Amino acid sequence: MKNIPPKLVTPENLAGLIDLYELSMVASHFEQGREGMACFDLFVRRLPPNRSYLVFAGLEQAIRALTSLSFSPGVIRYLRTMGLFSRAFLSYLRGFRFRGHVDAMPEGTVFFPNEPVLRVTGNLIEAQLVETILLNIVTHQSLIATKATRVVHAAQGRPVVEFGLRRSHGTDAGLQGARAAYVAGCVGSSNVLAGQLYGIPTLGTMAHAYVQAFRSELEAFRTFAESFPDGTTLLIDTYDPLQGARHAAQVARELAARGGKLGAVRLDSGDLVRLSRKVRAILDRQGLRAVKIFASGNLSEFGIAEMCRRRAPIDAFGVGTEMSVSQDAPSLDSVYKLSEVEIDGKLVSRMKFSTGKATFPGRKQVYRREKHGRYIGDVLGLEGEAIQGSPLLRPVLHAGKLLQRLPSLETIRRHAAAEQRRLPISLLRLHTVGRYPVRLSAGLRREIRRFRKSFS
Amino acid sequence: MKNIPPKLVTPENLAGLIDLYELSMVASHFEQGREGMACFDLFVRRLPPNRSYLVFAGLEQAIRALTSLSFSPGVIRYLRTMGLFSRAFLSYLRGFRFRGHVDAMPEGTVFFPNEPVLRVTGNLIEAQLVETILLNIVTHQSLIATKATRVVHAAQGRPVVEFGLRRSHGTDAGLQGARAAYVAGCVGSSNVLAGQLYGIPTLGTMAHAYVQAFRSELEAFRTFAESFPDGTTLLIDTYDPLQGARHAAQVARELAARGGKLGAVRLDSGDLVRLSRKVRAILDRQGLRAVKIFASGNLSEFGIAEMCRRRAPIDAFGVGTEMSVSQDAPSLDSVYKLSEVEIDGKLVSRMKFSTGKATFPGRKQVYRREKHGRYIGDVLGLEGEAIQGSPLLRPVLHAGKLLQRLPSLETIRRHAAAEQRRLPISLLRLHTVGRYPVRLSAGLRREIRRFRKSFS
Repeated sequence: MKNIPPKLVTPENLAGLIDLYELSMVASHFEQGREGMACFDLFVRRLPPNRSYLVFAGLEQAIRALTSLSFSPGVIRYLRTMGLFSRAFLSYLRGFRFRGHVDAMPEGTVFFPNEPVLRVTGNLIEAQLVETILLNIVTHQSLIATKATRVVHAAQGRPVVEFGLRRSHGTDAGLQGARAAYVAGCVGSSNVLAGQLYGIPTLGTMAHAYVQAFRSELEAFRTFAESFPDGTTLLIDTYDPLQGARHAAQVARELAARGGKLGAVRLDSGDLVRLSRKVRAILDRQGLRAVKIFASGNLSEFGIAEMCRRRAPIDAFGVGTEMSVSQDAPSLDSVYKLSEVEIDGKLVSRMKFSTGKATFPGRKQVYRREKHGRYIGDVLGLEGEAIQGSPLLRPVLHAGKLLQRLPSLETIRRHAAAEQRRLPISLLRLHTVGRYPVRLSAGLRREIRRFRKSFS
Repeated sequence: MKNIPPKLVTPENLAGLIDLYELSMVASHFEQGREGMACFDLFVRRLPPNRSYLVFAGLEQAIRALTSLSFSPGVIRYLRTMGLFSRAFLSYLRGFRFRGHVDAMPEGTVFFPNEPVLRVTGNLIEAQLVETILLNIVTHQSLIATKATRVVHAAQGRPVVEFGLRRSHGTDAGLQGARAAYVAGCVGSSNVLAGQLYGIPTLGTMAHAYVQAFRSELEAFRTFAESFPDGTTLLIDTYDPLQGARHAAQVARELAARGGKLGAVRLDSGDLVRLSRKVRAILDRQGLRAVKIFASGNLSEFGIAEMCRRRAPIDAFGVGTEMSVSQDAPSLDSVYKLSEVEIDGKLVSRMKFSTGKATFPGRKQVYRREKHGRYIGDVLGLEGEAIQGSPLLRPVLHAGKLLQRLPSLETIRRHAAAEQRRLPISLLRLHTVGRYPVRLSAGLRREIRRFRKSFS
C-alpha cells in the first residue's frame, strides 16, 4: 500500500488557496488587457459580540504569503483541466509574482470597524488575486489575538498559557493561533512547532493518561518527578483532586529531600475556586508555599475573571478551546474591498451600496488621536488629507519587496501590550461593550457624496 | 532583503504539531523502559448546542498523518535546546515511526457522545505521542461536516456551495473544511486547492470589485459574459439589485443572440426573500426562466430554512463563514483517553473520575441497531462482547500499515448521505435537539464497577 503523505499546505501549493472567482475575474481582466492600478482595503465591517476593539495580527504571515506566492505546475495543470482559462492566461499565471505595494498597521495595533488594517495597491490582477489568502491569514490571527487579550486581561497579571492545538481548526490554526495568542500576551504555548518555528516558549506537564499508566497515582507522581526533578507540574484530578494534592505534597517533600523541587500542581476539572483553596491549604500545611497551583479545563475570560474576583489561590491558567476557536465569537466580518481603480488611464474612487455592506471610496488612511497616554478617537480619512493624529497605515511592501525587516515577534508583542495600555478603560471591560469614536473626515464624506451623485 | 517563505505546516514538520506534555510523558516512559501496550479512545464528551448528532470526518488525513509521522532534524534540534530530554530519547525520536493499530468508524458515519470514533492500540509511547495531531484533525473536520449536514438539510435539495476559505481559521482549515463540507453533501467549493488536491468541484463567479472596475455595471456584465459566455453567474447587488437584474437580463438576451447563455444571477445582501421574488419576476418577464438565482451573504441553516419555508425562488446557496467556522458551535469537546494499559505484563482497564469528565474503561466497541432502515439505538460495549447490532469500529491500520485502500472521497460522501437517511427523523430537525439512545452494555457496566471498587 502506497504511503501518501497528508495533503498539507506548503509554500508550493499556497497559491491554490484562492477562490475560483478571483481567477475568473482576473482572467477576464487579462483577456481584456486591463492591467491598470487598483487599490483594495482589508477591514472588518462590524465588531463581533462581546468585543469593544480588535487586535491586528498575522501581518508577517500575510506579507510572506505575498512575497512567496507563485502558481505551482500542479495548480496550473489543475486549472487547465477546468477548461475555463486560455493558454495565454495560464502562461501568465505560471510567471506570476506579486509586485504590488502594501501599507498596513503595525502588528499588534488595536483597530475598529471600517478601518483598513492593510491596503494593497497594484495592478488590478495582482491586487485581486491575493484577496482570499490575505483575508484568511489576517482574519484568523486577528480573531485569536483579540480574544486572547481578553483572556490575558481577565487573569490580572497571572500567566496564561495557550493550550488549544487539539481543538483549533486544523494544523495551521494551531500554529498561527499560538502565535496570535503570544502576540496578545500569553506567556507561552503547549505547541512544540510554535516553539520551533516562532521561538514561542513551550510549556506543558502531564495528562491523565500518564497517571493512569501506573498502578497508583503516587507511583505515577514519583516516576514523573524522577524524570523531571526540577520544577515540574503534577496533574492531581485524575481520581480525587484532594487525595491527588496529598500525593503531590508527599512527592514534593521527597523531591526536596533529594535537592529537587516540585513546581506546581494542576487542576483540570470541578469547582476550581473551592478546590484550589483546599489544595492550597493542603500544600501550605506541609510547608509547600512555593508550589504553585495551575488551573485549566474549558476556561474562558469570564470564568477566569470570576475566579480572580473570588480570590481563588490560582497562580496561572492554561486556556485552550475557548481562546483557540474564539468560542463566543468565532469569526470576524472581514472583507477586502476595491476603493480605487484606474479606468481610461484615470484613478477613480469606488464604493458599493449593498444593503448593510456599503464600503467607503478612495485611498484611505486611519488617523488616531491620543490624550494623556490614552487613545481618544480615530478619523477615517483620505491618504494625504490634513488631519490631526498619527497615521496608522505605513508602507510595508514596495513593488513586491519588503521596505525593511519585519519586526520580531517580541517587538510585536511589546507593541500589542503598549496598545492595550493606551485603550480607553471603558473598552477593557469584559462584560460590557464600550464604544470608541471613529468619524469620517470631511474629505472622505465629500468623496462619498460625489460618488453617490454620479449614480443618481 | 531575504524572502523567507511563510511558516507553513508541511509533512516535514508535522511531528512538531504536538503538545509538549506528550513528549514529557513519553520521555518519562522511555527512561523507565515502559513500552507496554496501551489503548486510547478518541471521542466527544457531549453534543454542542443545536446538535442532535455528529458526523465523523477527517479519518483519511488522520491516517496519513500517522503513517507519515516522523520527527525532522529541525524539531529534534529544537527539542535538544530545551534541555529537558536525554540524548537517548532524542535519538529514539529521530527513528520514531508509528507502528500501532487503528480501528475507526468509516468516515461519514454519524456518532454520539462517548462513542469512540477512533481507537489507537500500540505501545504506550507511540499511542500517547499521536494524541494531539489526531484530535486536531478529527475534531475540525467532524465539526465542519456536522454543521454542513445541517446546512444541506435546510436547503431541501437545492445545491449548497462552500465559500468559506476567507473566514476559515487559517489555510489548513480552509482546505480540510472544504473537504468536510463536501463529505457532508455540499456540491462543491470556491477553494481551488480543494479542487486540485481532493477533486472537489470548484465553483465561483465574480466579486463586487469586478463590477466596480468598469465604468458601469452593464459594461462589467457584458465584459464578463464575453469572457465566460457559457453559463456564468453575474453578481447583481453592487449598486442596486433590481437594476442589476435588469442589466443581467439585457446581457442574457445579448448572449443568447450570440449562442451563449447566462447561468445565474447572484444576490449577496439585503432581504433575499423579497429581492429574489422581484428578480425572478424581472427575469421571467424577459423569458429568462432558465436563468437561476443564487444567494449568498452570511447564510446559516436557519436563514436558509426560513427562505425555503417562505418559498423564495432561490435555486442554490453559497455558504461561507457560518459553515466554515461552525459559527453557532465552533468546537467539539473531543478527547483522547486511555482505556487500557499494560502494567506488570498484564493489560488492565483504565478510567478517570474527574468531575464532569469521567471516562469509560476497557477496549470498547460501538454496536448500532437499525429498524425499517432507521437507526434505533447504540450500545457502548466491550470489544468481542455478544451484543446485537453492527460493530462500527473497524480495523484500518495494523502495525502502522494500511489494511486496505482508504475509500475515495466520493465513496465517503455517499456513505455520509446514506447515514443521514438512516437517522431518526427527530434528530434531523434544525430547531430542536433530539435524543438518541446510547446505553452501556452489561460488560462495560461490570468493568466500571470493578474499577471503581479497586479504588474505594
